[in-house]
Amino acid sequence: MGLFKIKGEVYKPVKDVDLGPNSREFYLRANVKAPRMAGFLVKIFVWLLEAPVLGAMLLYMLKRNNLIYKLVSFAELEEPPVFVPSQPVEDVKEQEVKYIESDLPPHQQVEQAMDCLPSFSEDTNHQKFSFHRWTILDYSRAYTSGEATPRLVAERFIEAVRESCNPQLHMSFFINYDTGDILKQATESTLRYERGEPISVLDGVPIAIKDEIDCTPYPTTGGTTWLHKVRACKNDACCVQRLRSCGAILVGKTNMHELGAGTSGINPHYGATRNPYNTSKVTGGSSSGSAAVVSAGLCPAALGVDGGGSVRMPAALCGVVGLKPTFGRVSHSGVLPLNWTVGMVGILASTVEDAFIVYAAISGKTPSHQPPMLLPKVCFPLLKSTNSISNIKLAKYGEWFNDCSDDIKVCCSQALDKLHEHYGWETVEVTVPEIETMRLAHYSTIGAECTTALRSLLQNVSIEELGWDTRVAFRVYGSFDSMEYLNAQRIRNRQMQFHKKIFEKADVIVTPTTGATAYSIMNDALKTGELDYINGAAYVRYQIAGNFLGLPAVTVPIGYDKLGLPIGLQFIGRQWSEPTLIHIAHAMQALCMSDCKKPEVFYDLLKKN
Amino acid sequence: MGLFKIKGEVYKPVKDVDLGPNSREFYLRANVKAPRMAGFLVKIFVWLLEAPVLGAMLLYMLKRNNLIYKLVSFAELEEPPVFVPSQPVEDVKEQEVKYIESDLPPHQQVEQAMDCLPSFSEDTNHQKFSFHRWTILDYSRAYTSGEATPRLVAERFIEAVRESCNPQLHMSFFINYDTGDILKQATESTLRYERGEPISVLDGVPIAIKDEIDCTPYPTTGGTTWLHKVRACKNDACCVQRLRSCGAILVGKTNMHELGAGTSGINPHYGATRNPYNTSKVTGGSSSGSAAVVSAGLCPAALGVDGGGSVRMPAALCGVVGLKPTFGRVSHSGVLPLNWTVGMVGILASTVEDAFIVYAAISGKTPSHQPPMLLPKVCFPLLKSTNSISNIKLAKYGEWFNDCSDDIKVCCSQALDKLHEHYGWETVEVTVPEIETMRLAHYSTIGAECTTALRSLLQNVSIEELGWDTRVAFRVYGSFDSMEYLNAQRIRNRQMQFHKKIFEKADVIVTPTTGATAYSIMNDALKTGELDYINGAAYVRYQIAGNFLGLPAVTVPIGYDKLGLPIGLQFIGRQWSEPTLIHIAHAMQALCMSDCKKPEVFYDLLKKN
Repeated sequence: MGLFKIKGEVYKPVKDVDLGPNSREFYLRANVKAPRMAGFLVKIFVWLLEAPVLGAMLLYMLKRNNLIYKLVSFAELEEPPVFVPSQPVEDVKEQEVKYIESDLPPHQQVEQAMDCLPSFSEDTNHQKFSFHRWTILDYSRAYTSGEATPRLVAERFIEAVRESCNPQLHMSFFINYDTGDILKQATESTLRYERGEPISVLDGVPIAIKDEIDCTPYPTTGGTTWLHKVRACKNDACCVQRLRSCGAILVGKTNMHELGAGTSGINPHYGATRNPYNTSKVTGGSSSGSAAVVSAGLCPAALGVDGGGSVRMPAALCGVVGLKPTFGRVSHSGVLPLNWTVGMVGILASTVEDAFIVYAAISGKTPSHQPPMLLPKVCFPLLKSTNSISNIKLAKYGEWFNDCSDDIKVCCSQALDKLHEHYGWETVEVTVPEIETMRLAHYSTIGAECTTALRSLLQNVSIEELGWDTRVAFRVYGSFDSMEYLNAQRIRNRQMQFHKKIFEKADVIVTPTTGATAYSIMNDALKTGELDYINGAAYVRYQIAGNFLGLPAVTVPIGYDKLGLPIGLQFIGRQWSEPTLIHIAHAMQALCMSDCKKPEVFYDLLKKN
Repeated sequence: MGLFKIKGEVYKPVKDVDLGPNSREFYLRANVKAPRMAGFLVKIFVWLLEAPVLGAMLLYMLKRNNLIYKLVSFAELEEPPVFVPSQPVEDVKEQEVKYIESDLPPHQQVEQAMDCLPSFSEDTNHQKFSFHRWTILDYSRAYTSGEATPRLVAERFIEAVRESCNPQLHMSFFINYDTGDILKQATESTLRYERGEPISVLDGVPIAIKDEIDCTPYPTTGGTTWLHKVRACKNDACCVQRLRSCGAILVGKTNMHELGAGTSGINPHYGATRNPYNTSKVTGGSSSGSAAVVSAGLCPAALGVDGGGSVRMPAALCGVVGLKPTFGRVSHSGVLPLNWTVGMVGILASTVEDAFIVYAAISGKTPSHQPPMLLPKVCFPLLKSTNSISNIKLAKYGEWFNDCSDDIKVCCSQALDKLHEHYGWETVEVTVPEIETMRLAHYSTIGAECTTALRSLLQNVSIEELGWDTRVAFRVYGSFDSMEYLNAQRIRNRQMQFHKKIFEKADVIVTPTTGATAYSIMNDALKTGELDYINGAAYVRYQIAGNFLGLPAVTVPIGYDKLGLPIGLQFIGRQWSEPTLIHIAHAMQALCMSDCKKPEVFYDLLKKN
């Protein structure tokens, strides 16, 4: 196969790589030449790819053309592998934070978080939104004042979901929701408010869960037709259990890209999740339903899982906030094991404050990650005053930052200008080397881990049970040998060192969240899924450091393109710097409030009767 | 290839596995059916194995017959992978230890170690040896008193090595030694003693270094004919530099099994290292020369590297002490990267005290391992009184313990009886499950890592440069896919949990060091090496936990078989428990002093003129 004729990239030692603005490191654009494929074409492609000899040759060509052999498999580098993206805990210098006693129960952590937020009378921002979704605090206040009850909201929620399913809309928000279970939770919450004993500000608040996370009484399908049949969901995942213990109403399992193996959110089994801002457009994925339900006003917050941008991409495309915490900050217990070293539970929310409240509920000191990691104490940002943090330095890599559509480029650049103008925050030009290499190394890693984790489950089903685009993904996922996996981990080592150095010069790295806004759902993709590697590459372009290096990242909606589709700006922080990230996101949100647009599809669950 | 017809082992959850004495876990003996091969047969085997299609089929059969597919590749288990065998630092309760200030220079650490040893007048043990090699303290005292000089010892050393090379003996101790460099170091040391300013007790003491560890002015061959041509040795490895800074004379690079890929110590390029107790027998490997030079009295201590028992096996077979510290305790900087997660620098020494002194010199608080690990403070055992530690509990798994030759079984059992009789230490019966699975998982891991680490170097040479047995090893090493690698790490997780539980019941696990004593070197193996998987399996039988789980382990010579060949007893401790291990080894040594035999080949470098 000529494998040994491929000359691998020779990487110079990390210390010799210039990370400054005038670095001669080359920005390699993703080398995507593949045409979009859907419908019958995808089927032929799968048939070829799964054929015995021809398939192997095709796979070889695919990996070769995508530079996996050159940049990863046969790379020459000195670094030993780093397998788990976790830095030893250091004293992170953060401004305006509040340290939380370890091992507080979730509802007490939420209470501590509420103390960090401005009180209602101080909260002048809230009124400045040109359009805003009801927040967690809105629900809580309405319940406490008696303006609404959780039961009423639950009924409206069920009605709204039913409406979203009708043939004109066909939003495909949920894979499963159980009206009986929702109403039961809502009734219990209503009784708590009647007794004057709500558990927390989250009591009675509808929260949706991506169908990759165990949540009783639902099966966990992972977006497939079979996974729940070979893997029973017996208990709530740890994060779900924590939300439940705060009184939140868990309103069902949101739609997702099948097994998280794609970025469009088009699921052949449960429908293409549609973008509330324009129902002919995708939501992005894989946490497609979680983004869409928040965008459409059905829930102030939802949980997703982010293994390669799967929370941040759909959040940006649907105009909501998406927060992916540091690797290990939230327990992975009860989340489908689609990988072990890149995925994290993340939060999609209507506002930064709501993302923060849910973060407070689900983040813990001792998650179940293996190997046992030493985690820093949980600490929260004091958001009482937006201007309280100063001297933030934003690292920007110009060539990368600008590798996106014109609308996104302009909108994101203006956002940086506003930050400078209002808060005096400086942008520092840097170079992030080997970004495309990191993307391929991450892909090899998630592919190898996903195949290994699912093998014993997959062997009980026929390959035909998978969607066509997922079959393509799994054919490549399963092709990595141990050398490719190990070299990918050596590349992880390099990038962790590069990023450590960049964070010596800046507090966060700032990028557009995606390189393109939501694209159109084509009819031929509905049954087969589609292979659209050009849009896919534009979506994942800015995601990988958050996963492969375990860095926390947040996307904030900052504007719209010419078609009115949302644009997100992403901040990537050093490990365990969630409080700073939330501060920054909160400050960014304050500058965008006056220009929020209401989605086409929107449900008002707290409307006056 | 029928790959998907193999049903993988279904492992039950760790919590359901009984580790007690009456466990129903099955002890699976290594499934070795292969006949011994050497000479022409090995060449044919290599030719078949490297052939395009036939080779792949043969490889498939080999992996299948050795149960790699069943027990590792297609295993069904729940555990996530654990990639690096490092426990978070816990407070290890150890008796009679002395904590050392962090970051002391090596010679001061050696001084601290000396304070833990009995003074000369107290040291009654020393005289009890029926035969003993000169110890580090013997050299130091002779130099201080003027009975000998480092220069004189160096001259005798060079003379002895020359003699060992003559055709009748052909011991093949060294790959490289430079008389000029040795004499230069010795002269400098002699001057220091003349000035009354020796650096430490190690000043002027000859110490040999395995040719896997960088030591100027020598090339690092790794036992090959080519590696040093494509990878220059520019500096001392960290551990060598530390010894040099204590004044030790680095006397050359010892012979080793080529690239550490075998356990016999038969090197086709540099000769078969011969056992000083019987020159027709192997030394074991891969640190064959380091064990042999200590056994033959050429050095009181030598450094080896232990990736799969490579220090402990030859130490046991040559009747010397072998200490493999906890993973990460000694810096790996400057050691050939033959793997990343199983290998550690280890010490071969004439006595437990000497192993301890060298350990004190080379162990540090901040080695260069990636990812940066949090290491506990260095601490040393107070050996002033052998009886000072009490209530030691020894875990023994009977079926495993007894899976060795009769002589070894009897000798090791008697040693346990002696420990009970003299110190009252109890033996606790336990079950260590899945030992053969762990061996195969370790093999897959070291294979995958070795291939990846060496690839860019190997591509610059022709495969014919490697010895025949090494070519067989590398053909299998390079065959592991990412699923096999990842499953091996999941098995590592299980075993780390099993061992953690066993160490709740006992301080150490006790085993024979090897299942067989030194076997005969056959003439047909000298040029081609040999494949002797039955003896190989007997040698590695008790080694794997030390490497795959990062546990410290020590072997002590405790007796001889009917042919007069040495037998070793091994103690495996929990991570970072070196002080306890050294205490125990020291106590064991005290009970064996009266029955030490002098090797056939022995050089007395401190003899009276």
